[in-house]
Amino acid sequence: MAVYTQVSDEALSSFLAEYDLGEALAFKGIAEGVENSNYYLETRKGRYILTLFEKRVNAADLPYFIGLKQHLSAQGFPCPQPVMGRDGEALRTLEGRPAVIVTFLEGLSPKRPNARQCRSLGEGLARMHLALGGFDGRRENALGPASWRRMWEGCAGNADALQPGLSNEVDACFVRINAARAFSDHLPRGTIHADLFPDNAFFLGDTFTGAIDFYFACTDALAYDLAVCLNSWAFEEGNATDASRLEYNFSKGSALIAGYQSVRPLEAAELEALPALCLGSAMRFFLTRLADWTSTPAGALVRPKNPLEYAARLAFHRKMETAEGYGA
Amino acid sequence: MAVYTQVSDEALSSFLAEYDLGEALAFKGIAEGVENSNYYLETRKGRYILTLFEKRVNAADLPYFIGLKQHLSAQGFPCPQPVMGRDGEALRTLEGRPAVIVTFLEGLSPKRPNARQCRSLGEGLARMHLALGGFDGRRENALGPASWRRMWEGCAGNADALQPGLSNEVDACFVRINAARAFSDHLPRGTIHADLFPDNAFFLGDTFTGAIDFYFACTDALAYDLAVCLNSWAFEEGNATDASRLEYNFSKGSALIAGYQSVRPLEAAELEALPALCLGSAMRFFLTRLADWTSTPAGALVRPKNPLEYAARLAFHRKMETAEGYGA
Repeated sequence: MAVYTQVSDEALSSFLAEYDLGEALAFKGIAEGVENSNYYLETRKGRYILTLFEKRVNAADLPYFIGLKQHLSAQGFPCPQPVMGRDGEALRTLEGRPAVIVTFLEGLSPKRPNARQCRSLGEGLARMHLALGGFDGRRENALGPASWRRMWEGCAGNADALQPGLSNEVDACFVRINAARAFSDHLPRGTIHADLFPDNAFFLGDTFTGAIDFYFACTDALAYDLAVCLNSWAFEEGNATDASRLEYNFSKGSALIAGYQSVRPLEAAELEALPALCLGSAMRFFLTRLADWTSTPAGALVRPKNPLEYAARLAFHRKMETAEGYGA
Repeated sequence: MAVYTQVSDEALSSFLAEYDLGEALAFKGIAEGVENSNYYLETRKGRYILTLFEKRVNAADLPYFIGLKQHLSAQGFPCPQPVMGRDGEALRTLEGRPAVIVTFLEGLSPKRPNARQCRSLGEGLARMHLALGGFDGRRENALGPASWRRMWEGCAGNADALQPGLSNEVDACFVRINAARAFSDHLPRGTIHADLFPDNAFFLGDTFTGAIDFYFACTDALAYDLAVCLNSWAFEEGNATDASRLEYNFSKGSALIAGYQSVRPLEAAELEALPALCLGSAMRFFLTRLADWTSTPAGALVRPKNPLEYAARLAFHRKMETAEGYGA
């Protein structure tokens, strides 16, 4: 849940005057996204989401994110469509922060996705990759492999306190990652979402209806996006309550991969790289969570997510040799 | 901001199956109310708010609150209207908590109400009192004068740490309150909102469009409700940044009272009691905030409000002798 920035009546009114949307009929802070402040906005013209970008988003990247959503919308892929002001600009300033209004997307984020939803998500992910084929924006993955070693050095000292032996486990994962060709340039690349967790995907029933929150999108290996999804959609709590005891649900994982392949079949090199990509993307989320866990003050508005949920995934992927192990 | 209880996909789906609303098309936690969890809910039939009642609300009071809103809606007063399930019941259970669906109310809560809004709010408050004239529900004000002394004894020891001399100031206010006839039964009584802060009132432009969050409603002096509003609508920060340096905005206060009187003229006894009622309602919010301030753990999801904002109002009201001083 995230409403960091309050919007005054006057500021909202002046902001909306720059659009052809009419006045606000409703304006409510909503619990969507973790990085930014989001409001449900309603006018006579329809329903919208107003986002204020907080400090974690680099303002220089915003035109890329907005262009990406405009491209996807133009291609008919369901995502929030940036609304232009009267001056033709989608990005402007509100309460001293970059801000954008996007269209409201119907659908619900599944709390505990089922296998049919995983299949539909896989199809949607592949459709998104194809729809982004013609997008000419480029953005480096700021949280890609080059950043992991640096992040790890910044917080490795805290790992063993979280779970004894964790530091050695992470080092062993780095050995595996460094040996893999998955993070070279030989895999098919393109624009990826890079954070398509269940929170960021909408469904009606079991059918994927769209993706939101593109603020980690970047240019990277397409199969890395699939690996992010396998990590965030196909693991679930086993009988234990301990966060480190997560289990890979093979039915969900194989449904996700099959859904993806039904739209965009994976190349042999992508299948071969899948275990290392899963390990790498688990590393990325483990490290950012570990950094947040360590640095978040006790009274913070948003509670940090437990890095051990990703330590469990690291341990799983490190032992996995082939894509078949994931259900491919 | 308040989403304490997460709702699983299955629980939401079974819950909605008990209504004639169709399936959810959107479901988002919203930052509305402090005591309960609130979700924006959309179906083919329309837009709604789904509320789960958290522990601070007494479940035995819920039929009263729901009956009150049904009565107000039937009288044409704008407020969220409880939606009945197929069995004719509005109140049922979701995720182990009492839960209700109400209609969505258009309008925005003013962050910093202006005098025109204060006038319109006063009119709306009086209309609400008249509309509730025929409501036969009864509920004691659990946070009325009888509770204040007990609350104060529970946390008086913390007052001087907040502001030196505060403890003596509060004791002096109690002397004044105990001497006043305002809290006897001689004033016109009825059903009051008892918490109609700007957060709980909606406007389009300067026009009051409805009230929400009736979970402190009770049977009490009507003029006490006006006093609650004077405290929450007519004070504003002066030039100082210190919370204790709030100022009474005479224009806003007199507009609020005039708006009220244009619909329901105050009796002489109510005008005479107004300073003591203002002092008493400031005491009620000071004491609950002081208790929350003292008991809220550092990492809590909702930050407690500063009790000193109400200590400043206490100091103001204690010196006020007549309703004219408020602009009546």
